Amino acid sequence: MTTKLIFSTIAFLYSFTLLAQKEDSIAIKKIADEVMTNGTAYENLRYLCKKVGPRLSGSPNAQKAVEATARMLKEAGADTVYLQPCMVPHWVRGEKEKGYIQLANGTKHDLKLTSLGNSIGTGKKGVSASVIEVKSFAELDALGSKVIKGKIVFLNFPMNPTYIETFRAYGESGIARWAGPSQAAKYGAIATMVRSMASNPDDYPHTGVMSYNDSFPKIPAVAISTNDAIWLSKQLKLKMSLTASIQNNSAMLPDAPSFNVVGEIRGTEFPNEYITVGGHLDSWDLAEGANDDGSGCVQSIEVLRAFKASGTRPKRTIRAVMFMNEENGGKGGDKYLELAQKNNEKHVFALESDEGGFTPRGFSFDVKDDQFQKLLQWKELFNDYGVYFFRKGGSGADIGSLNKVGAGLSGLSPDSQRYFDIHHAVTDVFENVSRRELHLGAVNMTALIYLVDKYGL
Amino acid sequence: MTTKLIFSTIAFLYSFTLLAQKEDSIAIKKIADEVMTNGTAYENLRYLCKKVGPRLSGSPNAQKAVEATARMLKEAGADTVYLQPCMVPHWVRGEKEKGYIQLANGTKHDLKLTSLGNSIGTGKKGVSASVIEVKSFAELDALGSKVIKGKIVFLNFPMNPTYIETFRAYGESGIARWAGPSQAAKYGAIATMVRSMASNPDDYPHTGVMSYNDSFPKIPAVAISTNDAIWLSKQLKLKMSLTASIQNNSAMLPDAPSFNVVGEIRGTEFPNEYITVGGHLDSWDLAEGANDDGSGCVQSIEVLRAFKASGTRPKRTIRAVMFMNEENGGKGGDKYLELAQKNNEKHVFALESDEGGFTPRGFSFDVKDDQFQKLLQWKELFNDYGVYFFRKGGSGADIGSLNKVGAGLSGLSPDSQRYFDIHHAVTDVFENVSRRELHLGAVNMTALIYLVDKYGL
Repeated sequence: MTTKLIFSTIAFLYSFTLLAQKEDSIAIKKIADEVMTNGTAYENLRYLCKKVGPRLSGSPNAQKAVEATARMLKEAGADTVYLQPCMVPHWVRGEKEKGYIQLANGTKHDLKLTSLGNSIGTGKKGVSASVIEVKSFAELDALGSKVIKGKIVFLNFPMNPTYIETFRAYGESGIARWAGPSQAAKYGAIATMVRSMASNPDDYPHTGVMSYNDSFPKIPAVAISTNDAIWLSKQLKLKMSLTASIQNNSAMLPDAPSFNVVGEIRGTEFPNEYITVGGHLDSWDLAEGANDDGSGCVQSIEVLRAFKASGTRPKRTIRAVMFMNEENGGKGGDKYLELAQKNNEKHVFALESDEGGFTPRGFSFDVKDDQFQKLLQWKELFNDYGVYFFRKGGSGADIGSLNKVGAGLSGLSPDSQRYFDIHHAVTDVFENVSRRELHLGAVNMTALIYLVDKYGL
Repeated sequence: MTTKLIFSTIAFLYSFTLLAQKEDSIAIKKIADEVMTNGTAYENLRYLCKKVGPRLSGSPNAQKAVEATARMLKEAGADTVYLQPCMVPHWVRGEKEKGYIQLANGTKHDLKLTSLGNSIGTGKKGVSASVIEVKSFAELDALGSKVIKGKIVFLNFPMNPTYIETFRAYGESGIARWAGPSQAAKYGAIATMVRSMASNPDDYPHTGVMSYNDSFPKIPAVAISTNDAIWLSKQLKLKMSLTASIQNNSAMLPDAPSFNVVGEIRGTEFPNEYITVGGHLDSWDLAEGANDDGSGCVQSIEVLRAFKASGTRPKRTIRAVMFMNEENGGKGGDKYLELAQKNNEKHVFALESDEGGFTPRGFSFDVKDDQFQKLLQWKELFNDYGVYFFRKGGSGADIGSLNKVGAGLSGLSPDSQRYFDIHHAVTDVFENVSRRELHLGAVNMTALIYLVDKYGL
């Protein structure tokens, strides 16, 4: 800790008196009571899931979601609601994705599979080839072209069950999905099957984005369910050669026009200083995107509503932003930053909720050391609302570059134990979100923004 | 803090060195890795829910659950498994419970209702009478016999949504269910309808125990769904008089023989000192009792398995106990204490898990001040496994009197936001339990017992 930092911390400690703590505690209780009693996030989520549904970037549903959340922001009491046009990748799954394993005795085992986002399709004929399982890129490299060429590579990277934070396991194994197809193509593979990124064995393929490396041929990439992956791995141990057949008809179309949706409450003292709170509006197409990330969107709208309904007037301008295209391009986040830079906006803070609508546990922060020390002074105010940790490191994909316009960054950290049961799968539906958990997340988000707005960062 | 207490705390602080913390951290990680990778609690719970099912005290299913958990304890590696015979109340719901509200226009509104545990029945003819709504016992007292006599009293005590700990709201409103029927009978009511104890509006009646005060006549008592309660309250505001008809055929039969199920790992150094970990084996009859309290049972079995499978040999004797009859009598807990007293057993510690299989948040303790100070030294060891708070006050219904044989008491505190969506209702099923959350609870329980066993209390 530098001397300067020590001084600024001590100075803050003096200014942040017990009296202020008491006042803040009362203000936060008022916000919490309002949200836990009259919160509308849950009903907004129901609408987004059941009336709009899946909302992949570029789809008609994504446009419906833009219109629905613009309305919700107005109903929440935003002073201004507007759209930020942006172009987004327009990937479509196509119909009839399927696949099977041909067993030596002639029978077929149908695979529960789904195309990975941004993958090309196999065409109507599909592809068939011997399957090679790899459990790491090192193994893939060791096998090389001699073995891999002409094969379908099965990337079997299970999520590590001993990591209590499931996002850590996702980060480690997810590389199979993001980078695996091109890594396999490097050695001449004709397609890849990736074990779904799921914490527990289940029968659902979990999709998600993959990215082609332009140095290598583009090959089709699908996810298979964890149960199929476990089964296939066992089969491969029994006999050295099995044939897989895959057919998918996904395709990348030309970029499509879309929007971020922004709602603002204008600040009373520093209207040109911005605090952003957001989630992403697009979702995968297999389900309702209830937790990923309908929850983050309706919580962000609830933050505005909570300010308005509790009579809390912010000094700075609070913006709730529904970012488009987080899942397979990040173009909404890029556009938001681009406009902030172009308009020379002063950004103080940005908070994203994109780890599900589950019970809140803490916040992660991507801020300077002195800012983190300041934030830590407030931590105990959150204990009554279930938030116990403030950690450095990480915020959210859509806001991760807003430090370029001066913002301290943060991400809500809900409990992660259930998240990868439903992530990117058909099970990410409204019924898997708890009203109280969702609203309690919004309470903590509003409280954090209330404090940053009041004291600066 | 007394001088003696300060000294004992300081002495402990010295003895509990950083080296010990490091050793303990490694031992707990070993336990956690074992449970999160190979834990069998979830599959045991599946069996208890899907192969046994509801297991009300005195029912054939309760006996099946005794046999099933005795087997599970053996499979977990218990050195000894035995049964403690006890007599339990044998209440039966009977068939055809139903009811409706007669509207002024002649139409009937069917009520979603269910008998409260231990309630008498109406008989086949049912009862019909005007409905009087009360929102507090003070209101009931104010109305008195003049208004209440001959009526059906509708006890509408909503759970307070602003209490973040839902058990606090349950404690406050639950009095309507526990004591309301006799309070109404005091003024001559002929039956009671209690608003279900649920955090959110839903269509399910939530049952639960009620208790008659012998000073007043016994009258039938049912729970109606929260949605029906909200509807009924609105109707009553519109017109002063509505008639309710209720029929239920529940009855209390003579006490029945049953058992607690006990599994032990014998201590290496102090085999005659006991540490108890348990849940209750009986459940309400409307659903599978997955969270209440199948979870606590399979977690307690998992504690034994985790000791065995991780090669952790306890100094003291660890007992996993499946208590019978927590829901409507507590006779299993009574018997366990009675035998401990009779056998002059020395009990060091007892831990119960009976607040659901949800993600663990903390522990409550009913211990002496110096013991609590000792426990607090260990708190940070739990942060990596999602447990952040150690609080004084409360343990578990089945172990709450074991302080009479010297035990410090504790209860696992899982996240409570979802609990009263499923509590005592048809929705308390296996599908509402998360494997990782359930197992993470068992990790923390095992870790706490490991530390208490190693260092004493």
